[in-house]
Amino acid sequence: MNTAQLPFIKAHATENDFVVLTDVNDELDLTAEQVAWLCDRRAGIGGDGLLRVVRSPETGRWFMDYRNADGSIAEMCGNGIRAFAHVLVAEDLETAEKFEVDTRAGVKVIRVLAADGVDATVSVDMGPVAVTGVSTARMGDFEFAGIGVDVGNPHLACVIPGLTAEELAAMPFSQPEFDREFFPAGVNVEVLTELAPGEDGGEVHMRVWERGVGETRSCGTGTVAAAQTALADAGIEHGQVTVNVPGGALTIELQDGRAQMTGPSRIVARGVLAGGLG
Amino acid sequence: MNTAQLPFIKAHATENDFVVLTDVNDELDLTAEQVAWLCDRRAGIGGDGLLRVVRSPETGRWFMDYRNADGSIAEMCGNGIRAFAHVLVAEDLETAEKFEVDTRAGVKVIRVLAADGVDATVSVDMGPVAVTGVSTARMGDFEFAGIGVDVGNPHLACVIPGLTAEELAAMPFSQPEFDREFFPAGVNVEVLTELAPGEDGGEVHMRVWERGVGETRSCGTGTVAAAQTALADAGIEHGQVTVNVPGGALTIELQDGRAQMTGPSRIVARGVLAGGLG
Repeated sequence: MNTAQLPFIKAHATENDFVVLTDVNDELDLTAEQVAWLCDRRAGIGGDGLLRVVRSPETGRWFMDYRNADGSIAEMCGNGIRAFAHVLVAEDLETAEKFEVDTRAGVKVIRVLAADGVDATVSVDMGPVAVTGVSTARMGDFEFAGIGVDVGNPHLACVIPGLTAEELAAMPFSQPEFDREFFPAGVNVEVLTELAPGEDGGEVHMRVWERGVGETRSCGTGTVAAAQTALADAGIEHGQVTVNVPGGALTIELQDGRAQMTGPSRIVARGVLAGGLG
Repeated sequence: MNTAQLPFIKAHATENDFVVLTDVNDELDLTAEQVAWLCDRRAGIGGDGLLRVVRSPETGRWFMDYRNADGSIAEMCGNGIRAFAHVLVAEDLETAEKFEVDTRAGVKVIRVLAADGVDATVSVDMGPVAVTGVSTARMGDFEFAGIGVDVGNPHLACVIPGLTAEELAAMPFSQPEFDREFFPAGVNVEVLTELAPGEDGGEVHMRVWERGVGETRSCGTGTVAAAQTALADAGIEHGQVTVNVPGGALTIELQDGRAQMTGPSRIVARGVLAGGLG
């Protein structure tokens, strides 16, 4: 396939950013090197990952081919799937308000609540959420207790009593020390403020240290773990929590052990690759 | 001015990357916040800086309006001006092979040796080069001697006898300690291999720690300082040196105390801003 002038979209969802390629008929056989180049922020377009939009001939559903920035295959991303759904609607590929998307982590149910060519609000069923216990973490001089939460991947979400949003923003962040017996495969660590009344349900501020990555502007499953923990800390079983992250805000609704995430997506640019995929 | 669907180009020159806006008639009054957003690698397009292509009505020359990624005004960039000249030729704005460009650091003479819509080879007169003396720097456990070189900005270029390209690539790099009396305004530090015979003249490998920035993939004036130092270290007064940096290779010709830099530029993508400058 001749990829010179290949169209792409650059989009972000709470500043988790993606190069999006529309490849409905699955004609692009992307190598890891090509993906790594596309995601390279200086030599390529730049992104935390790549999303390829494919129509699955087997299921008739859209398939989210999600790759990490290093070109490796990835399963699912709560921020990425909002950008994916936004592009589907903005590019007139999908007209339904509610539809299903195949991912490597199973079928995800999507609702596009609003969308134009620039902005969208997208809701995603993030599936089951399970509390796994209580543990602690240490970041520099700070030691804090938190709740282990499994959202398909492991989290330790830590409410710091009395912490303000300003104090959270100013906190020195570094690789946390954690209990390796409790989290043998490593853990994503969220540090958050206590639940406060928000516009519609509760509200917290959160920062996240992603396993193997470092601090990021946003982490979809991390906001689910944070919402679960903030509610539990406040003695509430079900409810809705707006989680403010450095890259924006997401609303998490927890009901019957499942999480629904609603949040923004923004299309920043549409373009073509000058020299193709090389 | 309505900036929705504003066209942009993303280009890099030895992986020093830029958002390029063509604004021949100087209609865009960019705020620092808009530039910072355009250069933001997650929320915007992403770049080490922004280049705005303007035709100066006073001089009749092209003016390179160069901004740093934080939106502040910048003077001159040996990598940026190659990308700037490439875009001029690729977009059919300039048809001469040799032309002058106004910069905030004066008029620069450019030769576009080859150019298509993707790749170019551009030569720039980088002006006078002055050796300012001998000094030392320390990076972690490594202490090395070097030559102070002024290329409009201060450099300390350090040849490490016997160092191989592989050893240089593996060296731990960190903020160097240097003589603050010798370099009161700080200094860019280059670490390089000894001059070896190259395809056309000599060849060295170099890494650079840019003042106020950290390690970068390439630094135009740094390659000039490195070439000057490599020649002096080999007891040669004039000559041509290919300087290999992590982002590619540049050829520096030193003659009568002036440097001519020749190197690549690549246009990665052409696009439009989905939501304009906001």
